[in-house]
Amino acid sequence: MLERIQKANDIKNLKKEELPVLAEEIREFLVETVSKTGGHLASNLGVIELTMAMHLVFQMPEDKIIWDVGHQSYTHKILTGRKDGFENLRKYGGMSGFPKRKESDCDAFDTGHSSTSISAGLGYVRARDLKGEDYSVISVIGDGSMTGGMAFEALNNASQLNSNFIIVLNDNHMSISENVGGMSRYLAKIRTADFYTGLKKGVTTTLEKIPKVGDSLIEQIRRTKSSIKQLIVPGMFFEDMGITYLGPVKGHDLPTLCRVFSEARRIEGPVLVHVLTKKGKGYTPAEEHPGKFHGISPFDIATGEVSEKKKKDTYTDVFGKVMCAEAKENPDITAITAAMEDGTGLSRFHSMFPDRFFDVGIAEEHAVTFAAGLAAGGMRPVVAVYSSFLQRAYDQIIHDVGLQKLPVVFAVDRAGLVGSDGETHQGIFDLSFLSSIPNMTVMSPKHKWELADMLRFALKSDGPVAIRYPRGAAYDQYVEYRAPIEYGKSEMICEESGIALISMGHMFEEAVKVRKNLKDAGYSCTLVNGRFVKPIDEECIARLAKNHKLIAVLEENVITGGYGMQVLECAARKQLSCHVLPIALPDNYVEHGSVEVLRKETGIDAQSVTEKIMETYKELQI
Amino acid sequence: MLERIQKANDIKNLKKEELPVLAEEIREFLVETVSKTGGHLASNLGVIELTMAMHLVFQMPEDKIIWDVGHQSYTHKILTGRKDGFENLRKYGGMSGFPKRKESDCDAFDTGHSSTSISAGLGYVRARDLKGEDYSVISVIGDGSMTGGMAFEALNNASQLNSNFIIVLNDNHMSISENVGGMSRYLAKIRTADFYTGLKKGVTTTLEKIPKVGDSLIEQIRRTKSSIKQLIVPGMFFEDMGITYLGPVKGHDLPTLCRVFSEARRIEGPVLVHVLTKKGKGYTPAEEHPGKFHGISPFDIATGEVSEKKKKDTYTDVFGKVMCAEAKENPDITAITAAMEDGTGLSRFHSMFPDRFFDVGIAEEHAVTFAAGLAAGGMRPVVAVYSSFLQRAYDQIIHDVGLQKLPVVFAVDRAGLVGSDGETHQGIFDLSFLSSIPNMTVMSPKHKWELADMLRFALKSDGPVAIRYPRGAAYDQYVEYRAPIEYGKSEMICEESGIALISMGHMFEEAVKVRKNLKDAGYSCTLVNGRFVKPIDEECIARLAKNHKLIAVLEENVITGGYGMQVLECAARKQLSCHVLPIALPDNYVEHGSVEVLRKETGIDAQSVTEKIMETYKELQI
Repeated sequence: MLERIQKANDIKNLKKEELPVLAEEIREFLVETVSKTGGHLASNLGVIELTMAMHLVFQMPEDKIIWDVGHQSYTHKILTGRKDGFENLRKYGGMSGFPKRKESDCDAFDTGHSSTSISAGLGYVRARDLKGEDYSVISVIGDGSMTGGMAFEALNNASQLNSNFIIVLNDNHMSISENVGGMSRYLAKIRTADFYTGLKKGVTTTLEKIPKVGDSLIEQIRRTKSSIKQLIVPGMFFEDMGITYLGPVKGHDLPTLCRVFSEARRIEGPVLVHVLTKKGKGYTPAEEHPGKFHGISPFDIATGEVSEKKKKDTYTDVFGKVMCAEAKENPDITAITAAMEDGTGLSRFHSMFPDRFFDVGIAEEHAVTFAAGLAAGGMRPVVAVYSSFLQRAYDQIIHDVGLQKLPVVFAVDRAGLVGSDGETHQGIFDLSFLSSIPNMTVMSPKHKWELADMLRFALKSDGPVAIRYPRGAAYDQYVEYRAPIEYGKSEMICEESGIALISMGHMFEEAVKVRKNLKDAGYSCTLVNGRFVKPIDEECIARLAKNHKLIAVLEENVITGGYGMQVLECAARKQLSCHVLPIALPDNYVEHGSVEVLRKETGIDAQSVTEKIMETYKELQI
Repeated sequence: MLERIQKANDIKNLKKEELPVLAEEIREFLVETVSKTGGHLASNLGVIELTMAMHLVFQMPEDKIIWDVGHQSYTHKILTGRKDGFENLRKYGGMSGFPKRKESDCDAFDTGHSSTSISAGLGYVRARDLKGEDYSVISVIGDGSMTGGMAFEALNNASQLNSNFIIVLNDNHMSISENVGGMSRYLAKIRTADFYTGLKKGVTTTLEKIPKVGDSLIEQIRRTKSSIKQLIVPGMFFEDMGITYLGPVKGHDLPTLCRVFSEARRIEGPVLVHVLTKKGKGYTPAEEHPGKFHGISPFDIATGEVSEKKKKDTYTDVFGKVMCAEAKENPDITAITAAMEDGTGLSRFHSMFPDRFFDVGIAEEHAVTFAAGLAAGGMRPVVAVYSSFLQRAYDQIIHDVGLQKLPVVFAVDRAGLVGSDGETHQGIFDLSFLSSIPNMTVMSPKHKWELADMLRFALKSDGPVAIRYPRGAAYDQYVEYRAPIEYGKSEMICEESGIALISMGHMFEEAVKVRKNLKDAGYSCTLVNGRFVKPIDEECIARLAKNHKLIAVLEENVITGGYGMQVLECAARKQLSCHVLPIALPDNYVEHGSVEVLRKETGIDAQSVTEKIMETYKELQI
């Protein structure tokens, strides 16, 4: 069957009885492919029938499907003629793991972060209506993404609509880890309620429990409510917002899905189709461990075991360990994650200190202000979050943390280039946006031990501190370089003259190579581990300026507002007679690929950096 | 009575019958005071009884009241001994118009932006429980603020709580302008429902309408729902999230409020008290025009007329006019505001093009991604938003607009120093965070005509464009300087040698004075209107470097990541032999006060800038 799907809408040529076969073939293809390339598996196995149903009912590319987050779009890619792309899935120059408008006209909107799809879909709907066009818009959002505030903002806004807009709530009771919060509990109630047989009885019982007039106002309200609460009406939450609710619908039942979508398309106004799916559906290891198979490296199909074993501690591991150790000593330490318990290394902390661990759902804005409240109440909160998701909370860091100088620690994981997730996940803006905030301290460690030291330092600070570190194995060389962390002070690694190289955080690994290249080419090179992006070490820069012609500054962040620019500003302000060369990422989004390849492509690998430094140094000699 | 309120908890010494007198005295005091100083009036008149009730039931400063947005905290300030502070309300060095921890230990958390109070309150609650302390936490949030996504994120998270947390929903059916969206409609239904008498009848009727089993699945669901929808159960929306709902409560009925708060305090778990208040209560002009009396300049009490008449067009006026003119010509132009129709100058646009105007509620994140969807669907959306609120949507600009290079125009109003609203409202980060985003164009006009030209230019651009302009009267000198806007090009005002001054946007007004000062002191001075912060005009800078020793760059933005740093980076990269002096705001929050005073205090007024330039120029001569 899979061979007969060469382009969009080909699925419509299949006979009814051939469709289940296609579903199975897609399932096998996905397991087979992802076991080789790595990628998102569990979520994709969960939406095969859902995706097929949409492609059967709707017309591509005229109708617009917007995938929230977008990592669940693999079947959509297959059904729109991109099966061959899976050979190079998430590889540099290959197919993205997320929807991309530049990849196919069947991808209506680029996604990657959570909770954006209803907003974008509503925009399409309004544009369609204003232009007098006639197509369907379908936003597919998971119950995890539904915990993000902007999804609620969009639902709230969608209620004003008089024309058709379909929101598919893909409810698998999970974000990456198990879902949390009131919305999730509410959906669980709907899932388990025996609505059709239970309703009538429920209403009758309820009716009997309504208190007589004469009770006190508050008593009356409370008693009424507690009796009415037994009456579960699916989707009233959404109906109360003005959204028609259809469901719950079994998410692996293709004929039913098709019927419901056809119905949904006819409704004037916003309609939410609540589809119950199973993450990892059809592949036992993924069904049993959906978290592990959310985003996975290449694995063995028979056992479900990841092929390459992890050899080294990651920065994330180090963070998790130090958090546990410090929390033992200090009962004020609390940890906050936005649905990334495992990804941010907090699983052990969670089991050791369940009361002091908070998973707030996919809700970075709330996470940060919640932490500010904790700090105002006397705790030592640590917000562990991926760099690109912390962008969501820029205002909260300015407004709720920085302004009151509250001692919140930001553990900014996945900073710098992250690799195969691509553009939406690169953590390349944090040094800029964090440095713009008054009262912030911004640090980045050169190796695993320095992350531990910085975290301990941050937990004693009297204001907000961010520590940024990358994805992957922690650097474990230069173990002997572990000068105590001093506020605003860089670490001198080796002092020579002529050329000075200051590296920020994990770029130290490249900087070591650069220095070797320069030495091999006959240059001398001072090497400094910058440590503090904010405040920068002005004294160190002034000292370097005395016997160096060139100070090169290396960071894995966009150039604008980054570390290099700040060093430049310091040098200009102090009128230092030394040329500063910031080496950073260009002013561009960086696509998917291995970090190694991406560094080369963006000119921040050791070779490119060496050449840039030598070239500039030569120019300065003239 | 007012004289007897000298410090926190003094209100508890008043007799029951004295309390209504106090309420009236506070009301008069507020009208009297704000008529002289200006400030927020309507919202404060609406919460007098609500605030008194909280101060009667709770103990200050042990219990923590967190005011969402915070502009409604005037009565709270009076009741905590800050009545005398009103003489210098919102003046430099005087009392802030918002809660400030540094002002009183009865201010539990600083606010200013919308929708943060539940998050902060939940933080306090968790801290209290972990520390084994025993105090009440009360977050007071308006129905307007409830449309912000992070309020939903916090509600969702609060549902997990087993200890007391009181959320007061101050429902006046308004944000600054009339409220919008599903949540607002839902609250309106509760307000108007005759719950206690209507419920029983409603349930019976509903019961009869429930379809018999045998209908098609979807028909059954839809028919059941439409009959059940007639059954209004107050607060089920919140109860479904796991939050106990108490209400609706009449918000100007002091004894009832006290009773409900005492009850709310005893509930284990999160409880939402729904209080119905009237904006402007007790002062007829404010009751009739709550929008006008939201934040108001000094006015005449008898007539309600603002004393100083506006003489000149503001930038906001100019923006509104050009939007209307352009929208007449181009049917694709649409306007989006986040509950700031009037503040952003879009009222006329709204009435002229009702279908193309979208007020999405206090929901900046959604506003931006919704605009991205509109653009993807072929429209020309313009998001009009205050600079400090756009911080909320940093991630959405990166992820939903910039990445796809969608032609969304950002009209960034209230940029730079805004004056008396203070720290939370200063628009001093936008040049930094907008410049960090790839594919963005960032501009700022020197005078009113240039804003018009820039907006027209932006509406024809093939990617995202931000135009930032300040609050208040638009500069209307230098009318003859109106060279056509060219992408990435500065405007030469007058070319000399020695010192060059590049000013960004509205700092042109100061720059003109600086140039005059310098000329008077015998210096020559080239004056350039920078126009584009991104991309900067590298050619112009290179040209200036040839016959100027010093290029001073003037902007009203924090220094880090701003325009000056970018000019500096350009000069360093091109190895220009010219000193660049960025003059910008220091790395600090800027408190309230007049813009004139604040510029002086932060060193960016004409006099300070002149001195800085002369001093640097002299140093360079040596």
